[in-house]
Amino acid sequence: MTSQRRAAASPTISDVARVAGVSKATVSHAYSGKRTISTATKERVFAAARDLHWVPSSSARALATHRANAVGIVLARQPEILASDTFFPAFIAGVESVLAEQEIALVLQVVANRTAEERAYRAMEHGRADGVIVLDLHRDDWRVELLTTLRLPAVLLGAYPHRTRFSCVRTDDASPVLELIAHLRRQGHRRIAHVAGPLDYVHSRARAQAYLAGSGTPELLREGDFSAGSGRRATAELLALPKRPTAILYANDTMAIAGYSYARAQGLAIPDDLAVAGFDDDHLSEHLSPALTSVATAPRRRGEVAARRLLADIAGEEPRSITVDCNQLVLRESTDAPARTTV
Amino acid sequence: MTSQRRAAASPTISDVARVAGVSKATVSHAYSGKRTISTATKERVFAAARDLHWVPSSSARALATHRANAVGIVLARQPEILASDTFFPAFIAGVESVLAEQEIALVLQVVANRTAEERAYRAMEHGRADGVIVLDLHRDDWRVELLTTLRLPAVLLGAYPHRTRFSCVRTDDASPVLELIAHLRRQGHRRIAHVAGPLDYVHSRARAQAYLAGSGTPELLREGDFSAGSGRRATAELLALPKRPTAILYANDTMAIAGYSYARAQGLAIPDDLAVAGFDDDHLSEHLSPALTSVATAPRRRGEVAARRLLADIAGEEPRSITVDCNQLVLRESTDAPARTTV
Repeated sequence: MTSQRRAAASPTISDVARVAGVSKATVSHAYSGKRTISTATKERVFAAARDLHWVPSSSARALATHRANAVGIVLARQPEILASDTFFPAFIAGVESVLAEQEIALVLQVVANRTAEERAYRAMEHGRADGVIVLDLHRDDWRVELLTTLRLPAVLLGAYPHRTRFSCVRTDDASPVLELIAHLRRQGHRRIAHVAGPLDYVHSRARAQAYLAGSGTPELLREGDFSAGSGRRATAELLALPKRPTAILYANDTMAIAGYSYARAQGLAIPDDLAVAGFDDDHLSEHLSPALTSVATAPRRRGEVAARRLLADIAGEEPRSITVDCNQLVLRESTDAPARTTV
Repeated sequence: MTSQRRAAASPTISDVARVAGVSKATVSHAYSGKRTISTATKERVFAAARDLHWVPSSSARALATHRANAVGIVLARQPEILASDTFFPAFIAGVESVLAEQEIALVLQVVANRTAEERAYRAMEHGRADGVIVLDLHRDDWRVELLTTLRLPAVLLGAYPHRTRFSCVRTDDASPVLELIAHLRRQGHRRIAHVAGPLDYVHSRARAQAYLAGSGTPELLREGDFSAGSGRRATAELLALPKRPTAILYANDTMAIAGYSYARAQGLAIPDDLAVAGFDDDHLSEHLSPALTSVATAPRRRGEVAARRLLADIAGEEPRSITVDCNQLVLRESTDAPARTTV
């Protein structure tokens, strides 16, 4: 009786082997799939494990090593971003493709406010996850400070502008903007506007700074928030100027598509009256008529790189920064006409 | 020394209150946000909590109640589905919108094979999640059997055809198919084909059965796998028949768009030579030319309903089935022409 009760409270692989009438190695192989075990034997092992409430493999390892076998992402955005954003779902797909190989789960937590966000990171540290990936990086990001006080590996997505002990996954956001401006200047554009994302985001600021360096028209910079509404409002403002721009670069495709629609409703032809370009290369963009010039940002690849880096950090490697060469300008019809000089 | 050591090992809200020099209620309010606390006081509370490694609120509740404060979804699909599928990301967004209110995390695990899938469910039961949502429901689903042996609440997405103790979130997949067939018959179509999803999926079968009931042309039923490639192959087969169909209904938009492109490449005009309709209403579908008729399936709302139902089950309510009235036929140009009688 005593041994049965002990087994029920905290079963071991030996208990499972005994009940199933096989060796411990066979129990292990039945779960790992590393050796071929007959279906009948497997069934016996699984039934014994079930009866004894024994948990094999990754969960057992988790208990032994105090690992969660999970990686966390905390999102302080509207849940809609998971459905409508171009970048985010593809990034998650890249992360999952790496985690699936090692049977690691992704803990995704959407939070409504900063208090909830801080609690979420603390819960991750307290056993929910072995490390986190930090998205939507700000220039002075309180989360980086918080994480510094927690015992939790983290990978920052973006080029954090201050010293940090965390790994960063950086991208070159400036080059495609400069390349696009050079293309527009060759077509005779001199009044080139930019509708930026929120300028306290690291990547929005990098795009805006490249714009300022390349265009020479700081009075045509507007700050949006990546939403269609903000793209439309900024476009209305720019087109109402006494000397309106002949080209507008938007920091994402959602704002670009909204701006593009607004300009057409005002009677402007694209690209003849107004050249338009976006960022992120939404899968809709190539199907518009005219098709939208954009910058492909390889979110899936970035997700893979960030996940691999985080797993390396969790395994005890020294954190380090990686630059992913992934942004690529895709020129399409929406920027394909010489500028009209009559504006 | 003893009390300090005890505090370090297992700190309580009293320890935090003492170190911060405030009442326990103030510590609680600093985290809950239910009362206004000065920033300076909050900082003191947070610093004390940090020093003592005390975890507030949902995590503390989790420790007290042995709740994970997480809900799980195990996906035995390619990770790409997170980026490219119409249904899945919107469904997740709906789930997260409910979980965010209560600061509950979503544990998303993509698995490569059945052994990993079973392990993932067992890990959920052993503390990773308080319940799971089961997607891609099959007619005889081994996961339902497995879950019956685990102590883990579950919500099944779809009308499971056997007795089960789990809550189901059902939808009416038959009505929009019957409605669409009636529309096509009014336009003179008599040879209406259907490219189904895998027929062991509950929802694919429901659509195919409605098709058989409505069309009277069982010889024009083909089974695809929801991929563009399978849509194209089935379309090629159907168009090569001596008496080809004049209309094709596809079980999702991905197959429909692939079939539509194939038919046009063969010189057929849509809808004049061939009427085409999909399912799921991909956000690309209304932007195609001609725009694609489809069935909007409200994945976000289904995610919300499934999450609320699961939280109710976890809270101890009696499991039950809910039918979400969410499928809606959206007629567009791709089915908007009288059938040609010369086929």
